[in-house]
This record gives sequence, structure tokens and C-alpha cells, in this order.
Amino acid sequence: MPTPTGVGTEELRRANLRAILQTVHTHGPTTRAVLTKQLGLNRSTIGALTGELQALGLVSEETAAVGGRSGRPSHLVVPRPDNVVVAIDVGVDRIAVALVGLGGEVLDRRIRAHQRGEHDVAHVVESVAQMVDDTFAAASGRRCLGVGVAVPGAVRANDGQVRFAPNLGWFDEPFTELLAERLGRPVSTGNDANLGVLAEHVRGAAVGYTEVAYLSASVGIGGGFLVGGRPLTGASGYAGEVGHMQVDSQGPECRCGAVGCWEMKVGENVLLQNAGRLTGGGPPAVAEVIESARAGDARAAAAVEGVAEWCGVGIRAIVNLFNPEVVILGGCLAQVWRAAEPAVLHSFQRSSLMSPRAETVIRAARLGDDSPLVGAAELAFEPVLDHPQTVPQAV
Amino acid sequence: MPTPTGVGTEELRRANLRAILQTVHTHGPTTRAVLTKQLGLNRSTIGALTGELQALGLVSEETAAVGGRSGRPSHLVVPRPDNVVVAIDVGVDRIAVALVGLGGEVLDRRIRAHQRGEHDVAHVVESVAQMVDDTFAAASGRRCLGVGVAVPGAVRANDGQVRFAPNLGWFDEPFTELLAERLGRPVSTGNDANLGVLAEHVRGAAVGYTEVAYLSASVGIGGGFLVGGRPLTGASGYAGEVGHMQVDSQGPECRCGAVGCWEMKVGENVLLQNAGRLTGGGPPAVAEVIESARAGDARAAAAVEGVAEWCGVGIRAIVNLFNPEVVILGGCLAQVWRAAEPAVLHSFQRSSLMSPRAETVIRAARLGDDSPLVGAAELAFEPVLDHPQTVPQAV
Repeated sequence: MPTPTGVGTEELRRANLRAILQTVHTHGPTTRAVLTKQLGLNRSTIGALTGELQALGLVSEETAAVGGRSGRPSHLVVPRPDNVVVAIDVGVDRIAVALVGLGGEVLDRRIRAHQRGEHDVAHVVESVAQMVDDTFAAASGRRCLGVGVAVPGAVRANDGQVRFAPNLGWFDEPFTELLAERLGRPVSTGNDANLGVLAEHVRGAAVGYTEVAYLSASVGIGGGFLVGGRPLTGASGYAGEVGHMQVDSQGPECRCGAVGCWEMKVGENVLLQNAGRLTGGGPPAVAEVIESARAGDARAAAAVEGVAEWCGVGIRAIVNLFNPEVVILGGCLAQVWRAAEPAVLHSFQRSSLMSPRAETVIRAARLGDDSPLVGAAELAFEPVLDHPQTVPQAV
Repeated sequence: MPTPTGVGTEELRRANLRAILQTVHTHGPTTRAVLTKQLGLNRSTIGALTGELQALGLVSEETAAVGGRSGRPSHLVVPRPDNVVVAIDVGVDRIAVALVGLGGEVLDRRIRAHQRGEHDVAHVVESVAQMVDDTFAAASGRRCLGVGVAVPGAVRANDGQVRFAPNLGWFDEPFTELLAERLGRPVSTGNDANLGVLAEHVRGAAVGYTEVAYLSASVGIGGGFLVGGRPLTGASGYAGEVGHMQVDSQGPECRCGAVGCWEMKVGENVLLQNAGRLTGGGPPAVAEVIESARAGDARAAAAVEGVAEWCGVGIRAIVNLFNPEVVILGGCLAQVWRAAEPAVLHSFQRSSLMSPRAETVIRAARLGDDSPLVGAAELAFEPVLDHPQTVPQAV
């Protein structure tokens, strides 16, 4: 039987270092007094720990004139934003690259459109790498803690292999390995919706919830879930594929080979097509349709209404399956929700007998279309947040 | 900072008592030697703990002639089956009541058919209670540790209120409270599919798996899930409602008020109706249709084939969402799976691009239609397994 004595003063110290760093990264500058209270530690222990984080270059301390009852100023522990990560969101019609500082501020941000003909993996790797090179060129003197990427597909956990990303036409592509080689740095890759729900949980509309469904549509639909506060991964990391539930036996045929998948009813291009517009315009084109519908364009209005109804059908299935506290909608789903909430709810509540769904909150993602990008940054910060002492010393 | 010393010798002892009792309950009679090895305790500690369980009347010890290298006989720790629970499965067309001994053996078992007109809660409570009375009358001299019930609906965790069980026509019924009053004993109630997956995990086809989807159809379809080895409950205990995913915009209308729900495509009665038979005959009638199909009845064969295809559609959605290691089919789904596996798989694999589903194992429930009943027994055993020292002394 293992003896419980003597376990972990070093272990505890590391856990406390981690707790302080995660607190200031998530909530921003925090006084020592608040940290002392939150962590249940005494002042001198907090002082020693923040001193160690200062020596590691991860935080700085400022004297804050805090209006406490004692009037005594408290030291403010500030995450140092010259510790950065590169976050990358590879979408179907655009690539976004951001430089994000410890503490979560986006310091630099680039977007490049890419088209269906440019989804070849080597091409995407080169395109991303050039954007990253430009980002670094504009960010001298900062220490890079990692690179995180969001992709619209299923990613194998152990090596970042993209198993399938139908909307990019990728099947078993060693994207992560190729990008890491090209950049000369380690790269972490995750599914965009899984990273989206992570971001909304840390900094967005899901703060404080443990049962969360995040559904985001662009060309396809991604789903990311928290169950008991933990990401739903499934057996191999592929859980959350919400776009290919069959909702209609009548079609149309889907890129995946099946028929009547949910994402054939509610993506950006479906809405554009139903409104009689050219496909491929992304969120701005969707916004135009919604604007036209408001201005009285009957065809646009019918398209929005139709997509809204199909949104409700899918959300209903998800709520019945997961009984989440909150459903967070991103991308085109958020646009449609804002434009036609009653139509979404009407279809969502169609089987009125299933009463508990009345308890579910539905809301738009607070980080907008940036949830996956912010989640990719969090993915890149993870190693240092988990083990502050392993922070790389070089840039 | 809490001091780690001095924590838990009493706590540890209780955890070890629990571990021993759970081991013999789940795996049957076990030698002290095996327990010593599995729990990493020394022989005298195991002896003291099994002595305590003996004093509580929960286990007995037998001297087993075990052929070890030393030739020394080892004490066999045996769960005492005179500790019993009553397990109840309230189905749409039948009520099953079983007496189950510690160790999991079913000692007595009664089934009573009930029809659609007899679903009034007071009537069901009285019917169940009479069966339980008969069961107790035949079980004198045994110690009842609890009563567990499986119902085909959503059950509120804190008080057993049945929020909705559309196939019984129950909405916000205080079934658990009424039954406890009538029996003069505490009653624990759970959703039938949640209890089914629990039973398959402890004693059936899901032993050793942590990511499990259990799908079982009779009149409706229930779903029970393990995520990371833990039951998926959702925010309020209503997760796993798989029957009301819309799979077809063309209908038919469902009892729930919506259209084209999965359970309108694959229940027992759908199969019977499509085969031109009278509905309501339950599993035996389904077996007859399958038999007729094998014997060359074209209409029966088409009905089986059709339902099999719709089985595949729903399983595909579930696998895409949960990425389980194993999908366990119960009730009518198991019957159709055994009769028409290729048709189920053909439709399951229709979107061939989603490769990870090839890694998912699909199999019939090992406990057959008894999974919810066995799960209800496990639910009733839970308090004593968690706190062996609180075992009631009276019968």
C-alpha cells in the first residue's frame, strides 16, 4: 500500500505555479491578494511562486493602487505578452494566421483567401508557412512558445495526421508533419470545432458551463462538445462529426458519399444557392443575403427561413442526444440564428413533448468566427501552461 | 495548504472494503490470493477486510483447493446471494420483475404483459407492486438491499420523477415516489438505455471498453452512452435520446410531435407493419417475421431489409457523433442485426469517406433483452457496493 506521507511538496509547487500562470493567462492581470485568496496559499508562498514565474520571463509584476480596506497597494501579476504563439485556422475558403500573446491578446492577424483548386496539401503548407514567416518577421524580440493549427477535419491525436477533411479533399494527409518540417518547429493540430468549443469555454460564451455543444457552419458543419467539462474525443479523437447526420432521405447527395446530410441543408453555399447567389462568397456573402432578406427580397428571405428551419432540425437532434446546458452557434449558424431566431426555435421545438429542451440555452459564439483560431492559440499555449518550467529560453 | 500526512487510513480501509465487494460481485467468487495481488495489499489486511465483510453478512469464505505452486489451499471469497435486490423493467408492452442476488445471479423472474390501455401510472405502480409482493413472498429469509427500476423515458436524477416517457404517455409523473410509497421501501429509477449500457459494461458486451454506444429498440429506441468510461447524463440526466433524430423529411409523424424520427423507421411495430403483420406482438412477433423472411416470404424479407437499412442510417449518425469503440445493439436492433448484418453495414458505410468508422465494433447485447433489467439490479446494488458498512441489517 503506498504511504500517503511525503508525497508531493515539489508536485504541489508545480501545481501552484501552473494555477497562477493559468489564472493570469485566462483572466488577465491579477493581484497577489486575489491569487492568495483563490489558491488558498499564504502571501510568502505566492511571492516565491510569482518570483519564479518572473525569472522564467512569463509574468511581470506591477504595483497596483488597489483600493482595499487596508489601503495597502497589492502587486499585480501580469502575463507577459512578449511570450507568443502562432495560431492558424485553415478554412475551406481562407487561411487565418494570428500572433497571440500570453494572456490571450491577438497581436497580429493575417488572412489569405484560398480557393477550391488550391487545397493541395503541399500548397496549403507553403501558403501557411509564408504567412507565418511574415508574422515572425513583424514580431522580432518575442519568444515563440508554440504553433497551433485548426483544420476542418478529423485529426489523429498522436501525430496530427489529418484522417479526413472532406471539404478540403484531404484523406490521410501528413499535414502537421509537413508544416512542422517547413517551419522547423513543432506544430500541434486539432479539429476546428473541438478548438472552437475550447476557446468558447476559456474566453467566450461557454465560460462556467460543463455540458456544451458548439456547432459551427461554413461550407460544412463542425461540432465540438464538452461532457462533464472535458472535451468529447471518442475512441480515436474523431467524435463530434455532426455534419453527416442524415436528416432527409430525399437528398441531396453529399460530398461524403451519403444522402441528405445535415450540412447539405445549412452551410454557407446552401444558403447562397437557395437565394440565387454565386456560391463561395463566405460570411460576407451570407451577410448580404440576410441584408437583402431584411430589405424585402422574397427569395433571400425564403432562403434564410429555409436554412433556419434546418438549423432547428439539427440542433434538436444534438440537444436530444447530449442534453447540454448551452448550445453555441458559430459561423453561418450564428448568422442565421441572429437573423431568424424564431424560425430556428420553431423547428427546434417541433416535437413539443420533449420538454427538457426548454432548459437549454442557445446563443451565438462570443468569439465570432475566431473561435477555432483562439482555440488553436490555446492548444499552442497548453504545454507551457501545463509545465511552466519547461518554457523554451530561445526565441 | 492541506497537509497530505495523516489523510485517510480509515478512508483507505473503506475504499479497500468497497474494492473487494465490487470484485466478487462483478467477477464472482475470488480467492484471497487473487484479491491480495489485484489490490496490492498484504495477506493479513485482506484477511481483516474479508472478515469485516463476513460480519456484515455480505460474503462467505470457502476453502478452495487451488492448484498453486505452493499447493497451499486459498480461501475463496464468495458473494452471499441471500443479499438480494429487486430489479424492475417497465417496458411498453411488458413488465419484468427479477430477484437478483449479490454476485448478479437472477434468482426469480416474472413477466406480465401490459397493453397500451394500461399505462396509467397508478395502474402500472399497482401492477409492479403486486409482482414485487409475489417475488418477496417467494424469497423469505433473504435480505433486500434495494429496489431498482428501468423505465423507457427521461428520469430526473434527484427524485426519480419521470419527465417524459412518450411511449408510455407519461409526462412529469411521480412514478418513483408512488412506487416507493406503495412498497414502503426506497426505490431508485433510471432510464432503461442508461441502465442497459451500465449492465453491458459490468457483465456484457462492453466489458473493458470506455467509449460505448448502446442502442436498443422495442416500440421506441433508447440510447445509453459511456464517455471516458462514465455514463453520459447531460445537464439534467436526459442525454441519450436517440430515437428522435430526424432522418427523413418525408415523415411519418411521430408520437413526439415531429416528423421522420429514427424510431418511426426501426421499431418493432414498424417492422411488423411493413411485413403486413399485426403490431404489438413484441420480440416473438419480430422473430416470426425474420423466420418468414428466411423461409422465402418476400414481403417479410423486404420489411427486414428496409428496417436494416434504417438501422444503418442511425448507427452512422451515432458513430460520427461519438466515435465509440463499440456499438451494442439491443432489442429489435439486435434481432435485425443478426438477421441482416450486411444490409445494416451497407447503409452504415454509405458515406465511405468517413474512414474511422471502420474501426468501430458493432455487436448484439450479450445480456439480450435483459440489459435494462440487469442494469436496474446494478442500480439497486450501488449504495451497498459504494458503502458496504451501511448495509441494512433487517430484511
